Amino acid sequence: MDLRCALPAACCLALASGVVADDSHRAPTMAEVVAASKPSDWRPLDPEYTLYLQMATGRIVIELAPAFAPEHVANIRTLVRQGYFDGLAIYRSQDNFVVQWGGPDSKRGPGKARATLPPEFTVEWNPALPLTRLPDVDGYAPVVGFSGGFPVGADPQTRQAWLAHCYGMIGAGRDNDVTTGNGAELYVVIGHAPRYLDRNIALVGRVVRGMELLSALPRGTGPLGYYAKPEQHVPISSVRLAADMPTAERERLEVMRTDTPTFAALIESRRNRRDDWYKVPAGHVELCTVPIVARPMP
Amino acid sequence: MDLRCALPAACCLALASGVVADDSHRAPTMAEVVAASKPSDWRPLDPEYTLYLQMATGRIVIELAPAFAPEHVANIRTLVRQGYFDGLAIYRSQDNFVVQWGGPDSKRGPGKARATLPPEFTVEWNPALPLTRLPDVDGYAPVVGFSGGFPVGADPQTRQAWLAHCYGMIGAGRDNDVTTGNGAELYVVIGHAPRYLDRNIALVGRVVRGMELLSALPRGTGPLGYYAKPEQHVPISSVRLAADMPTAERERLEVMRTDTPTFAALIESRRNRRDDWYKVPAGHVELCTVPIVARPMP
Repeated sequence: MDLRCALPAACCLALASGVVADDSHRAPTMAEVVAASKPSDWRPLDPEYTLYLQMATGRIVIELAPAFAPEHVANIRTLVRQGYFDGLAIYRSQDNFVVQWGGPDSKRGPGKARATLPPEFTVEWNPALPLTRLPDVDGYAPVVGFSGGFPVGADPQTRQAWLAHCYGMIGAGRDNDVTTGNGAELYVVIGHAPRYLDRNIALVGRVVRGMELLSALPRGTGPLGYYAKPEQHVPISSVRLAADMPTAERERLEVMRTDTPTFAALIESRRNRRDDWYKVPAGHVELCTVPIVARPMP
Repeated sequence: MDLRCALPAACCLALASGVVADDSHRAPTMAEVVAASKPSDWRPLDPEYTLYLQMATGRIVIELAPAFAPEHVANIRTLVRQGYFDGLAIYRSQDNFVVQWGGPDSKRGPGKARATLPPEFTVEWNPALPLTRLPDVDGYAPVVGFSGGFPVGADPQTRQAWLAHCYGMIGAGRDNDVTTGNGAELYVVIGHAPRYLDRNIALVGRVVRGMELLSALPRGTGPLGYYAKPEQHVPISSVRLAADMPTAERERLEVMRTDTPTFAALIESRRNRRDDWYKVPAGHVELCTVPIVARPMP
């Protein structure tokens, strides 16, 4: 028994390079789709909307979503440029839910950033938000798909669209008052997608690389996964905009576009997995199981 | 801003005791459902089908599912009683997918256990498998719900039912040959539910307590999340059947029954969350977001 094959890969990009289709009669696997992609299937990250969250264990790359939460993203950029997050910490890690960081820090005010913001929980669904629709039913939204590299729900009746709480998505914590989430404290989804949060809180971006540095943090033992003791807090060295870093210190990453035939083929490779391990194709793909692939630039 | 309220709890049992409904006009929250439950809403774990996986960091409690994978469960019990897993290790931790342990260990044969098993990927859906159905659509199965404390998919047309790959579910790794999963290597879901695995591999149980000891393990840096170096393996001290432990050393846990009005109320509390934080109830509940609550026996 080749035990390395004993479970298939969720996302076997580590094996993708060099994979070629050896069976022209079947639909391509995801690895084959990636291997056959063209340079135009990829886009660079915009350094003005890319954050580097630096911890002792490494650098986490975050892509912001100004099309969906413009005021939150602007406020986060202001906070970052003030050095707001530098020296703050991750103070919450709740199993199968979120890791959270930033505020509270009562000694550090928002400076030039705003203390409250309008609730950017949905946006008007307009032609500037082209949506690559998934073909299958979703329980949380009449329509789901991808727009500009982010997982999205939408409702044709209300003409609303919103980012979806998939694994790795980042949001702005808030209190019961919907204006209280200003981006000074952020959370990332580390478990099964809590889609019931959709339309209740502002999502502001997603982790593009380094997710494992957040998702594998020890869980907090206090209520709601808060670290019970201050010494358990995980320090954040700094958060920087990529645009503020010297070019040589920026990550050279590209992300697969979500509005191309290649991405449609990737979705289909996830709907019905064709490698020899699978005996029953699902015939269905769920929004949060479609990977938005990133890789080093060639 | 009370930052402890800045995101709601996924499962705020730590706060559940003492919570009472303070607003009789609204539907109860999950904490209120749990607080109002009767002793008959709970069941003890059967020690003949409960495993204790002991690591240096603590004990993980696993409930086996003989109704769905009887031959796998029998084989795992045989392996456990031979001490098969003692001194083996966790050797794979793939982000947003699975943690895996047990074999490979070429020096240790199956002993009295069987080397291959029939593929128990589905069972006949019969009256002995009463199903508490969820009211909402599911993309992966015509019918979903809970049976005997486990999340289940079912198809009335084929009369098949199967365990669903939710967070914390445990399965038996296999090679491409469907008979090769004999329970000597096991995996647990640590990320978004990989429901596309349903009906393709035998699920054998779920983690009832201690999930955070598995889900927060460092991710492997080798292909598919395998630990790249043997010294990164996480040792398993022992795996024991609860029935083989002295009574004083057993965990005194009870699990909420999934065939009661109380559980139906819990499902509804998850479909439409009523606490003041939520502004837009989802009106939908997804199979893998319904918690199967466990607690110490009173």
